[in-house]
Amino acid sequence: MVGYAFMGRMHSQAWRTVGKFFDLPANIELRALAGRSRGAVEAAAQRMEFASTETDWQALIARDDIDIIDICVPGHLHHDIAIAALEAGKHVLCEKPLATTVAEALEMTAAAVHARTLGVLSMCGFTYRRTPALSLAKRLVDEGRLGTIRQVRAQYLQDWLSDEDAPLTWRLDKTKAGSGSLGDIGAHSIDMAEWVSGQRIIGVSGMLETFVSRRPITGEFSGLGGVGATGSDAPRGPVTVDDAALFTTRLDGGAIGVFEASRFALGHKNAVRLEVNGTLGSIAFDFEDNNTLHYYDATDAEDVQGYHKINVTGPVHPYTGNWWPVGHGLGYEHAFIHQAADFIGAITTNVQPEPSFGDALHVQRVMQAIQDSSDHQSTWTNVSANQEQEN
Amino acid sequence: MVGYAFMGRMHSQAWRTVGKFFDLPANIELRALAGRSRGAVEAAAQRMEFASTETDWQALIARDDIDIIDICVPGHLHHDIAIAALEAGKHVLCEKPLATTVAEALEMTAAAVHARTLGVLSMCGFTYRRTPALSLAKRLVDEGRLGTIRQVRAQYLQDWLSDEDAPLTWRLDKTKAGSGSLGDIGAHSIDMAEWVSGQRIIGVSGMLETFVSRRPITGEFSGLGGVGATGSDAPRGPVTVDDAALFTTRLDGGAIGVFEASRFALGHKNAVRLEVNGTLGSIAFDFEDNNTLHYYDATDAEDVQGYHKINVTGPVHPYTGNWWPVGHGLGYEHAFIHQAADFIGAITTNVQPEPSFGDALHVQRVMQAIQDSSDHQSTWTNVSANQEQEN
Amino acid sequence: MVGYAFMGRMHSQAWRTVGKFFDLPANIELRALAGRSRGAVEAAAQRMEFASTETDWQALIARDDIDIIDICVPGHLHHDIAIAALEAGKHVLCEKPLATTVAEALEMTAAAVHARTLGVLSMCGFTYRRTPALSLAKRLVDEGRLGTIRQVRAQYLQDWLSDEDAPLTWRLDKTKAGSGSLGDIGAHSIDMAEWVSGQRIIGVSGMLETFVSRRPITGEFSGLGGVGATGSDAPRGPVTVDDAALFTTRLDGGAIGVFEASRFALGHKNAVRLEVNGTLGSIAFDFEDNNTLHYYDATDAEDVQGYHKINVTGPVHPYTGNWWPVGHGLGYEHAFIHQAADFIGAITTNVQPEPSFGDALHVQRVMQAIQDSSDHQSTWTNVSANQEQEN
Amino acid sequence: MVGYAFMGRMHSQAWRTVGKFFDLPANIELRALAGRSRGAVEAAAQRMEFASTETDWQALIARDDIDIIDICVPGHLHHDIAIAALEAGKHVLCEKPLATTVAEALEMTAAAVHARTLGVLSMCGFTYRRTPALSLAKRLVDEGRLGTIRQVRAQYLQDWLSDEDAPLTWRLDKTKAGSGSLGDIGAHSIDMAEWVSGQRIIGVSGMLETFVSRRPITGEFSGLGGVGATGSDAPRGPVTVDDAALFTTRLDGGAIGVFEASRFALGHKNAVRLEVNGTLGSIAFDFEDNNTLHYYDATDAEDVQGYHKINVTGPVHPYTGNWWPVGHGLGYEHAFIHQAADFIGAITTNVQPEPSFGDALHVQRVMQAIQDSSDHQSTWTNVSANQEQEN
Repeated sequence: MVGYAFMGRMHSQAWRTVGKFFDLPANIELRALAGRSRGAVEAAAQRMEFASTETDWQALIARDDIDIIDICVPGHLHHDIAIAALEAGKHVLCEKPLATTVAEALEMTAAAVHARTLGVLSMCGFTYRRTPALSLAKRLVDEGRLGTIRQVRAQYLQDWLSDEDAPLTWRLDKTKAGSGSLGDIGAHSIDMAEWVSGQRIIGVSGMLETFVSRRPITGEFSGLGGVGATGSDAPRGPVTVDDAALFTTRLDGGAIGVFEASRFALGHKNAVRLEVNGTLGSIAFDFEDNNTLHYYDATDAEDVQGYHKINVTGPVHPYTGNWWPVGHGLGYEHAFIHQAADFIGAITTNVQPEPSFGDALHVQRVMQAIQDSSDHQSTWTNVSANQEQEN
Repeated sequence: MVGYAFMGRMHSQAWRTVGKFFDLPANIELRALAGRSRGAVEAAAQRMEFASTETDWQALIARDDIDIIDICVPGHLHHDIAIAALEAGKHVLCEKPLATTVAEALEMTAAAVHARTLGVLSMCGFTYRRTPALSLAKRLVDEGRLGTIRQVRAQYLQDWLSDEDAPLTWRLDKTKAGSGSLGDIGAHSIDMAEWVSGQRIIGVSGMLETFVSRRPITGEFSGLGGVGATGSDAPRGPVTVDDAALFTTRLDGGAIGVFEASRFALGHKNAVRLEVNGTLGSIAFDFEDNNTLHYYDATDAEDVQGYHKINVTGPVHPYTGNWWPVGHGLGYEHAFIHQAADFIGAITTNVQPEPSFGDALHVQRVMQAIQDSSDHQSTWTNVSANQEQEN
Repeated sequence: MVGYAFMGRMHSQAWRTVGKFFDLPANIELRALAGRSRGAVEAAAQRMEFASTETDWQALIARDDIDIIDICVPGHLHHDIAIAALEAGKHVLCEKPLATTVAEALEMTAAAVHARTLGVLSMCGFTYRRTPALSLAKRLVDEGRLGTIRQVRAQYLQDWLSDEDAPLTWRLDKTKAGSGSLGDIGAHSIDMAEWVSGQRIIGVSGMLETFVSRRPITGEFSGLGGVGATGSDAPRGPVTVDDAALFTTRLDGGAIGVFEASRFALGHKNAVRLEVNGTLGSIAFDFEDNNTLHYYDATDAEDVQGYHKINVTGPVHPYTGNWWPVGHGLGYEHAFIHQAADFIGAITTNVQPEPSFGDALHVQRVMQAIQDSSDHQSTWTNVSANQEQEN
Repeated sequence: MVGYAFMGRMHSQAWRTVGKFFDLPANIELRALAGRSRGAVEAAAQRMEFASTETDWQALIARDDIDIIDICVPGHLHHDIAIAALEAGKHVLCEKPLATTVAEALEMTAAAVHARTLGVLSMCGFTYRRTPALSLAKRLVDEGRLGTIRQVRAQYLQDWLSDEDAPLTWRLDKTKAGSGSLGDIGAHSIDMAEWVSGQRIIGVSGMLETFVSRRPITGEFSGLGGVGATGSDAPRGPVTVDDAALFTTRLDGGAIGVFEASRFALGHKNAVRLEVNGTLGSIAFDFEDNNTLHYYDATDAEDVQGYHKINVTGPVHPYTGNWWPVGHGLGYEHAFIHQAADFIGAITTNVQPEPSFGDALHVQRVMQAIQDSSDHQSTWTNVSANQEQEN
């Protein structure tokens, strides 16, 4: 595994735990953790129970005792690591967004498609798909219980940047993160809206906004942000990414969509909201109440039609039969455990796991189209279709 | 009063009731109801307790015993009636949207500005402003308790057209309604977002969509829609307005906004939703729970920050002190009663009531810009500023 | 009508409005308002549009031009007025609780039963029954859609007495109100739980509590309470009723129930909550969101079982077809208008309206049993059955 | 650890995980798992990563390499194991309810008090205390932010027994479980209500009910219940415990409380609800939305008073700083991890962890008083005070 910050801690928890609750055809061993700083990586490895460490990701990839490389570092590092790992015959799980540019994502996808022919698999970490409530939503759509999908509306609302003195983390640096709210959180919305609806975005009109253009370069970093140095003398650096992204879309099945990603929506901590309206039914979800899916069934008796508030924790629901009795809800990290289970399952059966790098490339193209549209007066911009073979 | 359908019934209820709960400086008498069909208008007048009827709005305006003309007919009739009434020295309350085109709205506003100099007042019926929860939201913003407003998101979601066999009412005819979801419901969102935030929209990118292009021309009309004739042989006519409108905006105080109006959002009956995020606080509202305002105060102690769920029915809240004890909630019609009280109050004190025709003209300009943007690949389109003197 | 405070204002609004929205077989005229203070009653009559006034309820009853007596005064006055009115051949609508003692209620019921034989009808104002959401709940139970009812839980939570300096209103005087939270709000819970479940309470264990035993006798009265005189010198008088009532029950269909009424539940303004669990389904209601009924249908497909959040404002729902388009919610007062419509309908068809005085007598017996149980260490106490013929 | 069913799986997950997220002064090793069936315990040990197994709890306790005994077996086995473990100098974490009778709990508490003098610690698993939202509630009460507590209302609602054909598990056998809904779920409500309010229950009136008296003795067991054999011929056995428990209470600080525990509340999966009303504020919690605490602050500005909906996942909240960024919610199992962290912390600092066996004995006494009251017509029954020294 490469990286040991928020996502690294999360992934290691997933790898450690998955085998306890899912019947895996293989044992998982946390062989090695890589990071640049020897002291930090060793401390992290000890805590997270990795058997060894590397301070050089090339060395990690070169090791014979490693089958899977899990990439949990900032986006600008994904490309090189993923391609090298695939070429070395390692299965790769890569955090989202796949890359910082479409060009990188194209190369990564090409490498993935090639590796696939050699039985080497890859997957991108759009983990919210594996939240049981969203998995159930997907299942309802796939079973036709919403009819034809007409509308999607997605919001991803956080507020950790609302304070003008929050510090300048790597997530605000375009060279490291690729984009801001768009790539960090909007990418999730794009992926889940497409995945749940079963339709792909083919055109967009976008608008990006940066509310606070300079932030303290020093301070205490924690969580996603932290507490920045304050006062007029505190040195500040430029924010080079978007704070909020608004975009409207058309999808290839005829639906239209409206999206918002913001880190300035004061009061919302991680409100990942998705609503999908079809001709026969609708679903609504908000991650701040993650064990619940709201489902409207227009075929219910007319006098009792209303959104069903489904506690998605039962044995009939996706993934939850592996956990606790109904009503004993899951948290954020469980989707990562489900992701680990699915990835291992795909590897052992040699089936392409989803989302593939090609799926993630498509998200990257949508983001690029939004950026282009925003740069050109929000003019409607088509999303180029993936031409390359994408499994 | 002109018109006796949904809005006519509603307005007459407001006029009949307002004096019982608000101290008005004048008595209100329902002198005359006008409509084209003698039989229907007489039946309506009897039920609604109007003292007389007219089948010709010109005759209504010509009467000396009438001081106020209340216009509750479809939008394409507003222009002629309003201008004639103002010229005849009658105060005018006109339902929204003000007109079907900017040109009409301009002429109406000019008439209103002129009449104002003669002590004749006018007002447009963006009634949601007077829902106590939204009035409180406005007050909080005005008092600076949200700080600087950065974001607004507004949705107006209905589903009465989701059924493809719902009949072709006048609301789906561009020549009568001017537009579809945009003017009928999106106009409310525009007005309330601007009013609450205290900022005006200066530019937009828009996208309009019609999901069902032909509908039965016969059937049973009721509520907003009804039950259309079904079957492949049922005669159908063209829908000439939008079913859904998506638009992003910039406001003159630096905020950005994202809007959606839809009559196809299955499961939502009248979800008028507004969220406003400032630097110090946020508000959120959904008309489906109309007695509640959600308010986030970033100055609360850190460990108890969270949206306050305010039951806006107390003596300290706007309008509600005139009604029942706290917790005994109000319904949809009460905002119309508050509107009547405010309009009478403005007339008797000769103060311009809000929203003025000029305010409504601005909404019309925003809608026109959205239409233009939609017609030109969603390209960013500036909203022309009102040049004319507008009170 | 007798009385012109909170309930008097409410009832007059209902009488004025009902004919505008419901097809009544008779015209309603507000002939006369009675109250003790000439000045106050005349002012109230003028505002509420009563044609005349009386300062003596006997005089009101003696009038030939009056068919219905509507009793909106404190409970200790109900008995004499109601019986006199019934004996004078007037139909009677009496506010709840029916009386301050079972003995009074027995006499009133006997008078009602006798009057009924002469075509003179009576009804008690447990108005929440006619909130559309609760009417729908009743209908679902009656149609068997909840199966056999096993449990009811009811809470009626207010907080207007939480402040120790709130003044000593008549509602806190046992000689006028009969009881406190039990009779004022708990009575509603008893009635609605029995009515919706279709089962009657046959035994109880009760516990009554008074948190604040002395309150200011002066201050500003408004709403249900007001602002009392404060300070150590403010004269205070004894609170002679309960502030909160807790009771458990058994019902005659095998269900069990748990109830709470409190005026000290800080943060709850008028949370009238009812949940009913059957073998096939459940309902849940909270008046603070009065246009919504939550309904759980255990026959839904297993993966989408969850409470339906029903917006009870559609043409298929009780009463709401007479009002606005779906989603345009009603308020507290509408149940009073529905009550007026039903009462007029019952009179004109000579059908006993519900709830009858006999029904209200039963509620009185339940309250007495709760009081007795509370006086005897909460020991289980049977509710005596109504022996008298009760329609 | 003894036991490997629902609670055993949960506890092992907690022990495995706690050291990854909390700085513990000691390493945790899962040395041995005990169970009666060799095959089953070995399979469980392998999955849960225990180093060894025992089929005899006495053998487990006899081992020198074990410092902590974690008891996750049905209640009737707690007494012998806990006392033996304490006498052997092992620290003991025992699942709730502590025992099946007060007599057992008394002996266990005496053993715990004695062991404490030798530095051997014990704790009972009322784990909901360590749900961050409830920990925050406790903190607010302790800081005086709710003022004097006047009322508590607690419900613990499940529905897994609503189906009459659900099988007869050990939880329905009085000899194994001690009681039914009362001890299994009501015990949690008692503990959390007392702990959060800071007051102890001193008297009760109770009522217990069994809706379904005979159930299939065969079928498929899973989760808490399972799918029983159906049909008229399926062999059935007697349910010897309560299906629902209703009780009212008085607490030693002057508060009153109303409680309900039910496994028949159709539609509720694990609705652990607690509301506490004080003179200055209130809190409300429902485990079905476990990352949220509702808090009403009567000292807020009057026009914005309303329950704060607090997303209890921030660095300022209890426990959550050890986990993910704000808004990335926790699930059911995290409280068990917090419990493990606190227990280890207490052991290494030799501080009595809470809840102690004495605290749990008190809960046992309350349950006994409820049972006694229920057996005697719900007559008020005092809860005997713990006389023994209980730290």
